[in-house]
Order: sequence, then structure tokens, then C-alpha cells
Amino acid sequence: MTADIIPIRSNGDDAPPTIEPMLQLTASGMNAVNTVILDRMQSEIPLIPRLAGHLISGGGKRLRPMLTLAGAELVGYQGSRHHKLAAAVEFIHTATLLHDDVVDGSEMRRGKAAANIIFGNPATVLVGDFLFSRAFELMTEDGSLRVLKILSNASAVIAEGEVAQLSAQRKLETSEERYLDIIGAKTAALFAAASRISAVVAECDDSHERALDDYGRNLGVAFQLVDDAIDYDSDAAEMGKDQGDDFREGKMTLPVILAYARGNEDERAFWKDAIGGHRASDADLAHAITLIGRHNALEDTRTRARHFARRAIDAISIFPDSKARQAMAEAALFAVARGY
Amino acid sequence: MTADIIPIRSNGDDAPPTIEPMLQLTASGMNAVNTVILDRMQSEIPLIPRLAGHLISGGGKRLRPMLTLAGAELVGYQGSRHHKLAAAVEFIHTATLLHDDVVDGSEMRRGKAAANIIFGNPATVLVGDFLFSRAFELMTEDGSLRVLKILSNASAVIAEGEVAQLSAQRKLETSEERYLDIIGAKTAALFAAASRISAVVAECDDSHERALDDYGRNLGVAFQLVDDAIDYDSDAAEMGKDQGDDFREGKMTLPVILAYARGNEDERAFWKDAIGGHRASDADLAHAITLIGRHNALEDTRTRARHFARRAIDAISIFPDSKARQAMAEAALFAVARGY
Repeated sequence: MTADIIPIRSNGDDAPPTIEPMLQLTASGMNAVNTVILDRMQSEIPLIPRLAGHLISGGGKRLRPMLTLAGAELVGYQGSRHHKLAAAVEFIHTATLLHDDVVDGSEMRRGKAAANIIFGNPATVLVGDFLFSRAFELMTEDGSLRVLKILSNASAVIAEGEVAQLSAQRKLETSEERYLDIIGAKTAALFAAASRISAVVAECDDSHERALDDYGRNLGVAFQLVDDAIDYDSDAAEMGKDQGDDFREGKMTLPVILAYARGNEDERAFWKDAIGGHRASDADLAHAITLIGRHNALEDTRTRARHFARRAIDAISIFPDSKARQAMAEAALFAVARGY
Repeated sequence: MTADIIPIRSNGDDAPPTIEPMLQLTASGMNAVNTVILDRMQSEIPLIPRLAGHLISGGGKRLRPMLTLAGAELVGYQGSRHHKLAAAVEFIHTATLLHDDVVDGSEMRRGKAAANIIFGNPATVLVGDFLFSRAFELMTEDGSLRVLKILSNASAVIAEGEVAQLSAQRKLETSEERYLDIIGAKTAALFAAASRISAVVAECDDSHERALDDYGRNLGVAFQLVDDAIDYDSDAAEMGKDQGDDFREGKMTLPVILAYARGNEDERAFWKDAIGGHRASDADLAHAITLIGRHNALEDTRTRARHFARRAIDAISIFPDSKARQAMAEAALFAVARGY
């Protein structure tokens, strides 16, 4: 197998990269996945599908199960086992979102009131647990111990990443390295697992399995970097969550880490107060955005994201060129161009 | 195999049943299980073992993993696979306790401050998720898809039971049947699974597997009934949690269900206010205890528990008499005699 360079598709008129080819590639598979999701989030306890449905039908991109389907296309998998597994991936993701919203005290998610606001923290925690259990039921039904190992490990790593993020909250001394470790765990681990399991069901050799893991992991890091940039980008398209949430929660994301590192004494004093929780007004947020802009920290965060997106694209260059590979490459570029 | 009657051991001088024979039966196995627990709750994120350790080393009885070990003795299992699986059971239980404490806003657990009080809700939710993931990692390492199926299903049922309990909270119209469904899910499902999996690793036939499931399930129901009685029993030994928690949270447990059903109009008006959350003082709790006493509702709750304990004991009567069977039978009697 040659490790040829993937030519990045040009739309001729320099149109920005889109997620469209990825959506088309996975459209029919996603229908099957959505059927599993809707079927398996049911319960005799009415509050469960009501609460789960609020988030699940709330306009998520279902990017992670899409990675499983795209990976399956890339490796030419012909079966349908990956539908259940992709649904399991989405359930794990949904469970972590529900728990995140409780942890962060979120008010908005995907452009509407977060589940914890409508249904309260107790039900939100428990329905997260339910979906998490359902995910393992789905994997067990599939019966691959390799998949179970990959996804149970990813789940533990996600929880570790979330706890690490909590421990870093309001800690101005958090380094870029530490930040990358945290997002590698809380976000990229599931991207990596989602894309890797397609190679497992297709019984690919180890190098292909690792290539898909690398693709997902780097894409996940790029994705989170851009998410964290958008939270300070007043020009960015709506994310469906409140802008400035990270600021008010004192989360140490890369825009802040860079602006702080590059700031003068006055600026550092501001960051100290702000990350410490003593400056949370709209004016404070506006000032933070000004400082971040002054040091080019948003653009540099996006540049870092581009680096990881390129690594994602190169990771799958061991596969022959195909519609799937093109779609996956463009999706990586799209991930870093979001919000522009 | 004969379905002989188990003679309940008499201590000669009518001493109350104890958990001692069960502790002796499982002592060396529990050492192995504890080693797995301590080893696998570790993480590079220091907050995780600190928070998990607060609860895990906090004097829990580890009754559920003990059921796995006792079951293994009962069926004559010679291997050591059940140690890891018993640890997984305890991790699932610990995860649900951590999440319960967040859900209930508990202040005490096992005689000390609950994890949520010391470490906050966010970390408590996330460390629960971590332990839950670790449980599935342990099961995956063992590699039995049957065990994975039993425990992933039990986990989903537990979450359903917890949500159902939440939905029934402050609902005076909750019936005894509904209550039994709820405790069957939130408590007894894990007791059943813990004891059943011993038969799975020992490759017993289906009837023995079901017998162990029935033993655990009935024991779990009995156990929860007594827990719920103790919460209103001013004479009961300390449980390590605040007495009257159920009352203040408006939980519809059997003592309340019976006292309400048997009460006159004035009493029902009191219960309506109390379960509705408008009477939560110490004097109100004292009055509730008086009403429960007037209608013999505590003693009758314990009588119901005794019924399920007898069913647990009869379920394992298909196994030949042995030290293990005697210990398991006495443990069931002990479960209903607690707090006397």
C-alpha cells in the first residue's frame, strides 16, 4: 500500500470545505443508526425517552457515529454490525453531554434549554447512566470483545479527562501541554474509538485500525480546539450554547492560555481575577476578547487546530484514494473552518 | 437433585442470625476482590482515587461482591475469574451510590460526610462515571459476553429504577406494587446479577443460574424493605445515614404507603402535607413515626421482608446442603433482622 498524498479537493471557486460529502457518504447508514437510537432509548419509564429525546432529537450533528460509518466505507466493510455500535457511540456521547451539563450547570445546549434546566439535575444524571448502560448492552449484543475493550477504555479516559478539566478549572498555571492532554481525553478519545471500531468490525489489519484511531484522535483535538476558539469569537456562527461560558466557568482553554502567556503585567492581573471568578460581567468578557485578539490567540488556536486536522488527513493516506477518504479529509478541514 | 428444605440453623440459645458465616465463607476471596478494587480505582488524576477511596474505604459492607463469592462457593467453582467480576459489581454499586448522593443531595453516607459534600457534585458525578467505565473494562478483560449481558442489563434496569423512584417522589398515590417494582429495579437487580454471575463463570446449568438470580433478587428486595423500615425506626441501630432522609425527601417507601393506606382522614391530610414537602421538621418526623407505629407499618414492612428472605432461602434449596448454603441462608435472615 502506498502512502500517497491526499490532494485536498478544491471546489474550483475556493469555496470553503463542507461536511456535505461526509453527510452524503453516511446518509443511508445514519438512517439505520437513528432507528437503533430511537428504538433503544425507549423505556417503560416515560421520563427516560422524554429526557433523552430532548437532547437526542435536539439537532446534534451525530458526528461521532458518522465517523464509524465513514470508517466502514473507507475500509469497504459490507455488513451492518457497525450500525448498532455507532448508536452505542452516540449513547456514550449523549450520556457525557447530560453529565457535563450537570457538572457545568449549563443553561443552553444545541440552541435550547439544557436538559438539567428543564428536567433537573437528578433526572439528568440518571438518564445519562441509563444511556451509558444501554451503550454497553448494544456492544454486548454485537459481541466483539475488542470493541468492548476500546469503548470501555475510551469511557474511562473521557471521565478522567473531565475530572482533569475540573481540577484545572480556575487554575491559571495550566499549560498548553496539560490542556492538550485534557482535550485528548475528554473529547478525542471518543472520536478515536468511534473511528477505530469500523476497522475492528471489518477485521482490518492493525496498521489500518491504528490509522483510523489516529484520524479520529487528531480530528477530535482539532474539533475541540475550534470549539474553544468559537467560545471567544464574537464573529463566530452560533454554537447553540452561550458564548463566554468557558470564560465564566474559569476554564483554561487555549485562547486564554496563549493570551495569558503573551500578556503584560496588567493583562495577567486581569486574567488572574477573571479565571479566579471575580470578573464575569459582559464587559469583562468583552475585555477578555479584546486581549485574546490583541495577541492573535484565536487565530493561533485555529492554526493549532489546522495542524491536527492535517495529521488526521495524513493518517488515512495509507488507504487508497476513494470517495470516503475525500469526504473524511474534507470533514477534517470543515472541522477547523467552522464558525468562520 | 432434590429440593430439600433448608433447616434454619439454630444457635441453641436463640441468638439472632448473623452475617458471620458469610464473612468467613468469603474472607479469603474478599481479600482478592479488595486488591482488585484498590488497584483498579487508581488513576493518574489524583482526585479520582481520592474521591473513590473516600467512599470505597468508608466502611461499606461489600455485600454485593460477597454474593458473587458466596455463589461461587455454593456451586463449587474452583477458579479465580469471579474476583475481577465481583470487583466490577462493587464498582457499579459505588458509581450508583455516588450518583444517588448527588441526586438526593445527601449529607451523610456510611457515617461520614457524603462525597458530594466534600468534593462537590461535579467531581462526584464524574468519578461515578469513571468507576462505571472501569467496571466494564474489568468485565471485558474477563471476556464473558454472558456476564457482560447480565451486568449491562442490570445497570440499565438500576438507572430505570432510580428514575422511576424520582418520578414517584412526593406522589402519595404510589402503590405497594409500584414500590416493589421500583426497589426490584434500583436495588434487587444488582443483587440478582451479582449472585447469578457466579453460576455463569462456573458454567452451571440454567436452573442453577436462575436459582442464584432468584436468591439475589429476593434478598435484595428484603434488604431494601428493611433499609426503608430502619429510616423510620427510632430504635434501630445507626445506618450511617441521617434518619428521616426518606421522609424529608418525600420518598414513598412501604412504611409510609401502609400508614397512609390505613390512616384516617386527619392522618391522610398529614401525609399529604408531609410527602408534599410542607412538613419536614423534627416534630413532623416524630409524628410520622408515631403514625407508622400506630398502624404497625414498620413491623409489617419487616414481615414483608421476611417473606422475601424466605423465598431467597428456598430458591437455593435446589443445591445440596453445604456450609455455603447455610451461610447464604443465614445472611438472608440477618438482612431482615438488621436494626433490631
